[in-house]
Amino acid sequence: MEIKFAFAKTIIYEAAAYIRERLDEPIVIATKSGPTDLVTQLDEEVQDQLVQKILASYPEDKIFAEEKGLRHPIFDGQVWVIDPIDGTNNFIAQQTDFAIMLAYFENGVGQFGFIYDVMRDELYHGGGQFDVYCNEQKLAGYRDRSLQQSLISISAGFFQSESIDILPLVHQSLGTRLYGSAGISFAKVLSGRLLLYVSSIFPWDYAAASILAEKLGYQVLTIDGQIPDFQTRQDVMIAPIEKMGEITSYIVKKEGVR
Amino acid sequence: MEIKFAFAKTIIYEAAAYIRERLDEPIVIATKSGPTDLVTQLDEEVQDQLVQKILASYPEDKIFAEEKGLRHPIFDGQVWVIDPIDGTNNFIAQQTDFAIMLAYFENGVGQFGFIYDVMRDELYHGGGQFDVYCNEQKLAGYRDRSLQQSLISISAGFFQSESIDILPLVHQSLGTRLYGSAGISFAKVLSGRLLLYVSSIFPWDYAAASILAEKLGYQVLTIDGQIPDFQTRQDVMIAPIEKMGEITSYIVKKEGVR
Repeated sequence: MEIKFAFAKTIIYEAAAYIRERLDEPIVIATKSGPTDLVTQLDEEVQDQLVQKILASYPEDKIFAEEKGLRHPIFDGQVWVIDPIDGTNNFIAQQTDFAIMLAYFENGVGQFGFIYDVMRDELYHGGGQFDVYCNEQKLAGYRDRSLQQSLISISAGFFQSESIDILPLVHQSLGTRLYGSAGISFAKVLSGRLLLYVSSIFPWDYAAASILAEKLGYQVLTIDGQIPDFQTRQDVMIAPIEKMGEITSYIVKKEGVR
Repeated sequence: MEIKFAFAKTIIYEAAAYIRERLDEPIVIATKSGPTDLVTQLDEEVQDQLVQKILASYPEDKIFAEEKGLRHPIFDGQVWVIDPIDGTNNFIAQQTDFAIMLAYFENGVGQFGFIYDVMRDELYHGGGQFDVYCNEQKLAGYRDRSLQQSLISISAGFFQSESIDILPLVHQSLGTRLYGSAGISFAKVLSGRLLLYVSSIFPWDYAAASILAEKLGYQVLTIDGQIPDFQTRQDVMIAPIEKMGEITSYIVKKEGVR
């Protein structure tokens, strides 16, 4: 597993270098599900390169990735989960606050995960048998602190939700932040800058974080408190395990909703 | 004015160094208007040092500053506007995404402004007779792009406003972001990473940005399209001058409100 872990680290750095070299070049942008769901040629090129390198070194392994419909079931065999550029809208409009994410599972058991904040050059890595680091610094894990003294991040859509009232949680906290990238937001939780992050996201958005979280006292669950299905888009949160009960008590289902 | 400008740059760097040296020390936190309106001893120490240095070099000058009620009218004489740590909650909970801000006025006319993103080491400076730079790089100024292709930042309170419906503006944009610091948000507008920023803020929050904005094709106005009063807390926005009409057309007054 050490060899595979080192391999993963190498290809993620290569992917980041590829992106950085092309920051000044014109970006080809296409829409996916709607006008704010964007993809660039770099998302696809970076994913293609990662997939090719993985399959060249590990031809038996499988891929679950954001672009191009690669969807091998994560619970079946040796599976790599790839988000080539998480926070594509930030990448396009800001050229910062985006991440490359990579996670590796064996029969559904997370072995390691990577979240790479490309422009800050901060690689969060580890999980499974590996300790969790940001670059060369081992992360300390969750230290108890109150919701009232902590910043949180909740995706904008929850403020207009017809089924959930998120405001009681917001009002218990020190304040909300919104960074526009799951990877950047998960990294801020894992490094202690946010207490929790809630968003409606896909498995490639939360796979790496779910593996990293376990080593640091955090957990990735649906807002109903279930293990995510690792197949579909779900309302997912990361929070300290020991704070889950308190936090979910402030996420209120609206009346008339099952 | 060049000498005063260079002096200001020197004292802001000194203030940042003072903060950085104390990041690992215990922080004394007090509340101001409520449980999320915090101040630390560093806010006050940094302000004290800036005030002392200014008055030592320019004994006739006056001060308008966030802490300790220093409120010389900005329109009267030679006035320095100081926000020693903008984004205090970020400073406390994240140790990043906070700014030192300094602005200098003569009889109400902005002469220069500084926004220093301390942890990224990015100093936005200029205005008045000075071109606007981020560190050594001259900023290009606003380049036309559509709201639909741009990220925007709107303070959380506007989503719960009883007098204003901000959602039409949000829905016209590529997405919203929330950084928890006026200085950081203004800097992202001035550097082209956000198209606009709306918040309910005080003169020390927007003074520097208002001076920098004019040189780059932006303007700081109230959301009613007025020049801010530079005295009280107001709903203030920064946006490209040529986009003001379009943007304000999407900020809708709710029925029954004058």
